[in-house]
Amino acid sequence: MILVDVTRQLSPTARSTIRRGSARARTERSDLHAVLDAGLICHLGLVVDGSPRVLPTGYGRRGDTLYVHGSTGARSLREAAAGAEVCVTVTHLDGIVYARSLFHHSVNYRSAVIHGRARGVVDADEKREALRVITEQLAPGSWAHARLPTRRELAATAVLALDLAEAAVKIRTGGPNDDAEDVAAGTAWSGVLPLERRWGTPQPAPDLPPDVEVPAHVRDRRWPA
Amino acid sequence: MILVDVTRQLSPTARSTIRRGSARARTERSDLHAVLDAGLICHLGLVVDGSPRVLPTGYGRRGDTLYVHGSTGARSLREAAAGAEVCVTVTHLDGIVYARSLFHHSVNYRSAVIHGRARGVVDADEKREALRVITEQLAPGSWAHARLPTRRELAATAVLALDLAEAAVKIRTGGPNDDAEDVAAGTAWSGVLPLERRWGTPQPAPDLPPDVEVPAHVRDRRWPA
Repeated sequence: MILVDVTRQLSPTARSTIRRGSARARTERSDLHAVLDAGLICHLGLVVDGSPRVLPTGYGRRGDTLYVHGSTGARSLREAAAGAEVCVTVTHLDGIVYARSLFHHSVNYRSAVIHGRARGVVDADEKREALRVITEQLAPGSWAHARLPTRRELAATAVLALDLAEAAVKIRTGGPNDDAEDVAAGTAWSGVLPLERRWGTPQPAPDLPPDVEVPAHVRDRRWPA
Repeated sequence: MILVDVTRQLSPTARSTIRRGSARARTERSDLHAVLDAGLICHLGLVVDGSPRVLPTGYGRRGDTLYVHGSTGARSLREAAAGAEVCVTVTHLDGIVYARSLFHHSVNYRSAVIHGRARGVVDADEKREALRVITEQLAPGSWAHARLPTRRELAATAVLALDLAEAAVKIRTGGPNDDAEDVAAGTAWSGVLPLERRWGTPQPAPDLPPDVEVPAHVRDRRWPA
């Protein structure tokens, strides 16, 4: 059961109010956090020279701030860091919904769409903390295990911060919504084919000495963490 | 080995020319097709009231035309159908690259970023064919198995067509690119943790008679097809 805490609910705006399939809309901040925390990459949308651009990249969340990772060499990220509007979308595809009719075919999914003006993170302490949460999202345990960034490496990394104030969460679960006539006719199979993800066998780098064991944070990694 | 056929190469433009990590850029049209054909959903980028918007949706490819699926009720899709610029991105995350340094942590992935002006598909025959390829992408076999769309259902479905003329493909494979000093120091594990996807056990709809068997196109579905 989801406890309703209105002070933690998402604030709908014109563009974050879900019009299509509103039965699938979620308004709890905890749903937003859960969708974001279960992901590995996001799709970052920007407007460059008036045209949309959608780039896959790493991210991490700390409280109600989303940090997005990039290179200082990428022009689109420099523009976003200068306060341009961005849209960050995280999507999990959970299964294919096979209905009796093609019209009712669908997918089970969880998605979060976040709107806002990004802020380039310049403070060294905040940037280090942002990289830590981005690392923990993509490779939990690595921050404590691998060599930490040098001052020069930190400078070569761009980080955007985005407030999680304006967001839309949609979640679809369950079976097909078939029309009654199609159920009665019974001409096709109906149900869900779940899509599962799992981690494969760790592949050590060729230049790693053979006696180095796979550390626990890699060996025992579970999906989605 | 990839055979080079210049007439089939991607035409680079200013925005589809990859500046960051260009060692990962691919210029073969066959690479673009392969990345698209291996996907299930895309992220559709649009500019709405000057702001970027990124929406996950289904798609399919026929030759060098990409079809994107939506609802006629969605304003963003109506604007795209009226000839607005769009950006469609398909990303496959294949593994996490654990380097000896956090700076060289990375991911193995395949991505395609397509730019262009979309066209709303209005011709009934083209729309039916577009929905067929979108269905075959998401649920191969369903077009032959399930009930076909009625005229009314076709009218309620919006389809965008996008030419695959301007696209950027990036593919990263292999292990970490560690600095020589980090390799010598040997302080951290280095390697790749592959991310695998597989189909789970089909879940029949509750209202399906128990004697209806799971059809072969669902039961025997393999990843990624």
